[in-house]
Amino acid sequence: MGHNTKKITVLGLGAMGTAIARAWLSAGYELTVWNRTVSRAEPLTTEGAKIAATAFDAVAASDLVVACLLDDASVGEVLADADLMGKDLVNITTSTPGKAGDRAEWAAGRGARYLDGGIMAVPPMIGDLDSGAYVFYSGSPELFAAHRDALAVPAATRYVGEDSGSAALHDVALLSAMTGMFAGVSHAFALMRGTEVAPKEFAALLIEWLTAMAPYANGVAAHLETGDYTLGVTSNLEMMVEANGTLLRTAEEQGVSPELLSPFMTLMERRLADGHGDEGTTGVIDLLLR
Amino acid sequence: MGHNTKKITVLGLGAMGTAIARAWLSAGYELTVWNRTVSRAEPLTTEGAKIAATAFDAVAASDLVVACLLDDASVGEVLADADLMGKDLVNITTSTPGKAGDRAEWAAGRGARYLDGGIMAVPPMIGDLDSGAYVFYSGSPELFAAHRDALAVPAATRYVGEDSGSAALHDVALLSAMTGMFAGVSHAFALMRGTEVAPKEFAALLIEWLTAMAPYANGVAAHLETGDYTLGVTSNLEMMVEANGTLLRTAEEQGVSPELLSPFMTLMERRLADGHGDEGTTGVIDLLLR
Ligand SMILES: NC(=O)c1ccc[n+]([C@@H]2O[C@H](COP(=O)([O-])OP(=O)(O)OC[C@H]3O[C@@H](n4cnc5c(N)ncnc54)[C@H](OP(=O)(O)O)[C@@H]3O)[C@@H](O)[C@H]2O)c1
Ligand SMILES: NC(=O)c1ccc[n+]([C@@H]2O[C@H](COP(=O)([O-])OP(=O)(O)OC[C@H]3O[C@@H](n4cnc5c(N)ncnc54)[C@H](OP(=O)(O)O)[C@@H]3O)[C@@H](O)[C@H]2O)c1
Repeated sequence: MGHNTKKITVLGLGAMGTAIARAWLSAGYELTVWNRTVSRAEPLTTEGAKIAATAFDAVAASDLVVACLLDDASVGEVLADADLMGKDLVNITTSTPGKAGDRAEWAAGRGARYLDGGIMAVPPMIGDLDSGAYVFYSGSPELFAAHRDALAVPAATRYVGEDSGSAALHDVALLSAMTGMFAGVSHAFALMRGTEVAPKEFAALLIEWLTAMAPYANGVAAHLETGDYTLGVTSNLEMMVEANGTLLRTAEEQGVSPELLSPFMTLMERRLADGHGDEGTTGVIDLLLR
Repeated sequence: MGHNTKKITVLGLGAMGTAIARAWLSAGYELTVWNRTVSRAEPLTTEGAKIAATAFDAVAASDLVVACLLDDASVGEVLADADLMGKDLVNITTSTPGKAGDRAEWAAGRGARYLDGGIMAVPPMIGDLDSGAYVFYSGSPELFAAHRDALAVPAATRYVGEDSGSAALHDVALLSAMTGMFAGVSHAFALMRGTEVAPKEFAALLIEWLTAMAPYANGVAAHLETGDYTLGVTSNLEMMVEANGTLLRTAEEQGVSPELLSPFMTLMERRLADGHGDEGTTGVIDLLLR
C-alpha cells in the first residue's frame, strides 16, 4: 500500500534531486541521501535528512531507492557495487527509451523491481502541486502501486505502461514537440524585429494563437487512428503549400533566414507531389520514419 | 460612424469571400457582389445579394469595397479599371507586408482610403462569433473607425497600426509560429509510431503540454525588451543543448529523421559556442536576422 512508504533513499543531490528530497522532507518522510560531492548533501541534514557515507550504505538504508543523477552512465557507476536484492529502484534520471529498457533488465538481474521516470518540470516547480509539474512513470506496475502516494509528493504522477522505456519516450516526445514550437516562436519574433510592435503585445497574440491551434494534434491523432489523412481537413496541403510561399516571401522581405521552417515545408511539398493535396500535414509523419 | 455603414461591395466569392458575404447578408447589409466566375455568385442572390455585371459596376455600387481574392496580383487585375476615387477599400486578400504596403500606395494614388487585412480563420468559423476567428487590420485609422461595426460582423477585428503591412506581418508571423509547432507535433507523433500508445491519448498530453509551454513567448519578449537574455531563465542553453542529445539519440533509436528539429538545435549550439550558455534560446533570434 502506497501510504505505508515511510523511508526513502535519494541518490544525487543536484538541482533536481535536492528539490525532490526537500519535498519529501517537508512531507515528513525519513530520508537517507547520498551525493558524490558531499557538500551538496550537507544543507539537507538541518532539514532532517541522514547522509550515507557511500552509495552502498544509502541503498541499504531504505527499500525505496530513488536515483536522480546526471545520465544513465552515472546511474551505472553509482550503483555498480550496491546490493539491490529486494529493493524498489525508481530511476528519474533523464535517459533514452532504449537505455531505460536496458537499465530495467539490469535491475531485474540484480533482484530489484524497477520503475523509470521522466520529469516534466524544472526544480522550482517541485513540491508545488499547483505548478502543473508531473513525472511520467513506466515499468513495474507493482512498484508503482506500492509507492504511488510517496511518488506523488514531489509532483503529480502519470503511469504510462509496463514498458520501462515508455516514460522516457513520452518525455522526449513532448520535449521534441516543444522544440518545434520554440523554433516557430523564434522565427515569428525575428519577423517582428525592427517593427514598432512591442514584444510583450506580440507575445500575448502568439500565446493565444498557439493555444488555439494546439488541438490540431487531435486531428492528427484521428488521421493516424483511421488511416484517413483527409478526415475533417479544412486547410488542405495544397492550400498550405501555397501559403508557405507567402511565409517565405515575407521572411525574405524582413531579412529573416527561413532555415527553421523550410525542412517542414519541404516535406509538405514532397507529400503534395506524391498526390496528397487533399490531406492535412499528417502524411509528413510517414516521411520522417525510416 | 461605423453603425451607418449599410452598403458593402464584395469582390471575390471563393470559399472565404462567400462565407464573409453570407455573414453580412444575414446581418441585413445591402450587398453587391462580383466574382470572375459568375456561377459562384448566383447562390447568394436568393439570400438578397445583387450581382454586378463587372468589377467596375461593383465598385461603383458602394462606398465600402471589400476585396477577398486569390492574391495581390488578382487584386491588381480586378481593380485595374475601377474608379476608386473617394472609396474605402478593404483588402483582406492574403499578401506579404511589402505588397500590402505597395497596394496601399497604389490605392492612395487613385483617391481611396485603404485598409489591409489578414484573416486568422477558416471559412466555417466566419460569422460565428464564438469561434475565436478574427481579422488583423492595418492602414487608415479613419477607414477602420468609419466601418468598425460592419467589419466586426464576419469575425472579430484587431487593428494593428497605420503601417499597411502590419496586418500581413502579424498574420504571417502567427502562421510561421504555428508551422514550427506543427513540425514539432509531427516529430513527436513519429516517435510514438509503433508503440501501443493510442494517438488520441498522446494528443491530449501534447495539447496540455504545448499550452503549458506557450507562455515561453512571454520570457522571450522580456528578453527582447530588456536586452538581457538571461532574465528568469530556469533551463539554460547549456542544459538545453545537453537535452538535445537525448532527443537526437531517441529519434535515432525510434528510426525517426531529426530533420525537423536539427536546424534549431544547430543554432542553439552556435549560440552556446559564442559563450551564451547562461541564456535561454532567445539569442537564436539574433542568428536568424540577416
Ligand atoms: N534541472 C532540470 O530542470 C531538470 C528537468 C527535468 C529533468 N532533469 C533531470 O534530472 C536529472 C538531474 O538533473 P539536475 O538538474 O539535478 O542536474 P545537476 O544539478 O547537474 O546534478 C547532477 C547530479 O548528478 C551527479 N553526478 C553526475 N555524474 C556523476 C557520477 N559520474 N557519479 C556520481 N554522481 C554523478 C552530480 O553529483 P555532483 O554534485 O557530485 O557533481 C549531481 O548530484 C538529470 O537526468 C536531468 O536531465 C532535470
Ligand atoms: N480559405 C481559407 O481557409 C483562408 C484562410 C485565411 C485567408 N484566406 C485568404 O482569403 C483569400 C480568398 O481565399 P479563398 O479561400 O476564398 O480562395 P478560393 O476559394 O480559391 O477563391 C479564390 C477567389 O479569387 C478569385 N480569383 C483568382 N484569380 C483571379 C483573377 N486573376 N481575377 C479575378 N478573380 C480571381 C477566384 O475567382 P473564380 O471563382 O473566378 O476562380 C475566387 O473568387 C485568399 O487570399 C486566401 O489566402 C483564406
